[in-house]
Amino acid sequence: MSQELILPKRLLMGPGPSDVHPHVLKAMATPLLGHLDPTFLNIMNETMELIRYVYETKNQVTIAMSGTGSAGMETVFVNLIEPGDKVIIGVNGLFGQRMVDVAERAGAEVIQVQAEWGRSIDPADIEKALKNYSPVKAVAVVHAETSTGANQPLEEIAKLAKEYDALMIVDAVTSLGGMKVGVDKIGIDAVYSGTQKCLSAPPGLSPVSLSDKAVEVLKSRKTKIQSWYLDLSMIQAYWGQERFYHHTAPISMIYALHEALRLIKEEGLEATFKRHEQNGRALQAGIEAMGLELFAQEGHRLPMLTSVKIPDGVDDVKVRQLLLERYGLEIGGGLGPTKNKIWRVGLMGYSSQRSNVIQFLTALESILSELKIKINEGEAVKAAENYLNNHE
Amino acid sequence: MSQELILPKRLLMGPGPSDVHPHVLKAMATPLLGHLDPTFLNIMNETMELIRYVYETKNQVTIAMSGTGSAGMETVFVNLIEPGDKVIIGVNGLFGQRMVDVAERAGAEVIQVQAEWGRSIDPADIEKALKNYSPVKAVAVVHAETSTGANQPLEEIAKLAKEYDALMIVDAVTSLGGMKVGVDKIGIDAVYSGTQKCLSAPPGLSPVSLSDKAVEVLKSRKTKIQSWYLDLSMIQAYWGQERFYHHTAPISMIYALHEALRLIKEEGLEATFKRHEQNGRALQAGIEAMGLELFAQEGHRLPMLTSVKIPDGVDDVKVRQLLLERYGLEIGGGLGPTKNKIWRVGLMGYSSQRSNVIQFLTALESILSELKIKINEGEAVKAAENYLNNHE
Repeated sequence: MSQELILPKRLLMGPGPSDVHPHVLKAMATPLLGHLDPTFLNIMNETMELIRYVYETKNQVTIAMSGTGSAGMETVFVNLIEPGDKVIIGVNGLFGQRMVDVAERAGAEVIQVQAEWGRSIDPADIEKALKNYSPVKAVAVVHAETSTGANQPLEEIAKLAKEYDALMIVDAVTSLGGMKVGVDKIGIDAVYSGTQKCLSAPPGLSPVSLSDKAVEVLKSRKTKIQSWYLDLSMIQAYWGQERFYHHTAPISMIYALHEALRLIKEEGLEATFKRHEQNGRALQAGIEAMGLELFAQEGHRLPMLTSVKIPDGVDDVKVRQLLLERYGLEIGGGLGPTKNKIWRVGLMGYSSQRSNVIQFLTALESILSELKIKINEGEAVKAAENYLNNHE
Repeated sequence: MSQELILPKRLLMGPGPSDVHPHVLKAMATPLLGHLDPTFLNIMNETMELIRYVYETKNQVTIAMSGTGSAGMETVFVNLIEPGDKVIIGVNGLFGQRMVDVAERAGAEVIQVQAEWGRSIDPADIEKALKNYSPVKAVAVVHAETSTGANQPLEEIAKLAKEYDALMIVDAVTSLGGMKVGVDKIGIDAVYSGTQKCLSAPPGLSPVSLSDKAVEVLKSRKTKIQSWYLDLSMIQAYWGQERFYHHTAPISMIYALHEALRLIKEEGLEATFKRHEQNGRALQAGIEAMGLELFAQEGHRLPMLTSVKIPDGVDDVKVRQLLLERYGLEIGGGLGPTKNKIWRVGLMGYSSQRSNVIQFLTALESILSELKIKINEGEAVKAAENYLNNHE
């Protein structure tokens, strides 16, 4: 029946996964060490150090959970929240909604602070909620809303959380490695991410970090953590000095994450951020020059994920199909309220390259022209190149 | 700081992970498709078919969970058990104990049916518990206790579960692909496994299958599933026709599992089982010929994992260290009550090879001789070769 896989070539410019760096793919193919092999334990130590590097934290509890970004989200909530705890969650997209669902299953009483999809959460609304519902156990926001392309400034909200003695929880799935998260400087107490966005490793691990304050909360729980698989009190005993066996670590994925983070360190964190910023802004300049509109609120647009309003009369699915079939180029569609209304174009990690910006703009222009959609022909690439030449 | 990984050569003959087949390593290095790419969705379909093949089931809900075997365990309990449900669990090793912990966190009232480590659970004890605690929601046993090397016959217990209208839950982490699980024939309602044992893929996925009866239980739950990440009602909507996005599948790991299962199908299920059986029994013959004793109860010894009593006066850790340092050969030690009392020698999947049997027996004999431990020199390899020559 099944044959060995021979797959079509793809250029991954959707909301994740991004293209994986060839060195990371090579790491994936490395023969296995045992998960308690001294050499492997050393790789785990180095991986923790590298995760600390991208998060910019000294947090002791900084590990890779054995699941995707959503497992990281669940890890944070089931470990820090106990039934009846009040949690304020910023909801301006799918991943904020997901946090609500996950937190409620952990027994939280959730207070939603909403903003329109595509806009960021107003810190004043968070403050109001903190006042009204005091005492609040935690405030949680999504740093980079993958469903909308909007960023969420963290400084002010983190200060408020601290002021009201609440934990500051951040979803950094799409931001980590593509823009500054700055865990220690901002004062984030619990953060999680995924490997398949700006880290450019395959999906399958979730880098998680807890501040000392969060660790104290974990240690002083009154109830048992409802998940065995995600129980940090046991998992940190495997990643820590004790090396106490919990579950078999996804060895190959840790090789991949180690290599992906090592490549980021080699490029340098600031250089990586700058690359994401430049390519993202160039793409956005190109899109606007073409005559299309951006979806996310101005001033809050992510560099690694650009949301584009689909012009009236354009068949969303058809355009994405043509991009995929003709050019092997994958972008994402909208979700929930933005379904068929926006495209989501990623420039994450290894996919964030000047050549990809140009390739996408050229392909999109060809397709829209063929479909007789009115655009400013020939302007997009010029604008993007222009932006890049002026921002080296 | 960190360098690209250059790792020592290992022969993985512990309790898992096993050596990964070179074709599976190659699959791990395949560039990614998007997790909603039509070609990838087709690979998921083929993977489901292949999982059904090794489980020998027609179960519709047969998928790979995005976590290791323990995540599969938790998946089964959090989806099928509701607070207050009575669950009978056979406990004769670490993984039975783990099921108790996981089931209790899901709110189960657990009735433990115990046997000594190294022995199998007596079906009569299960029947007694079923009578005493009726109605019971589920009976759960470990098919191949990785901590002891003992197998658990399933037929009789499955019949009892059916008779008392309880779900039959089986941990097939170490058995799947190395011995018959036979889900449909036995009448198993929920089963989970891992990829890093007899399937010889890296750790990171857990093949799970639910019978129609189990799916009915899932559908008629009164309470919400406590885990979002492991919520099968949502996950099957991604693996099924709806293709509803839940979380980003660990794409590379699915490539690996697809290839690992394809290789098993190419070899043939019965041929794979026979290879495990022959190499395991040959190893056991060699161990006994050397003058060492086997730990697991006679008649209940697993072919893919042999537990060996460590002779008096032998330094457990030192022997394992020498095997690793001199020969790159990894075996496992004991856990809990068997710590420093047994070795666990795996012949799983790609590691189950005649050359590995001989290599291990030779290396162990060299080390024990050097440590002046009284053994029958020169007998082990002869006995193993003899066994294999007579059982082609």
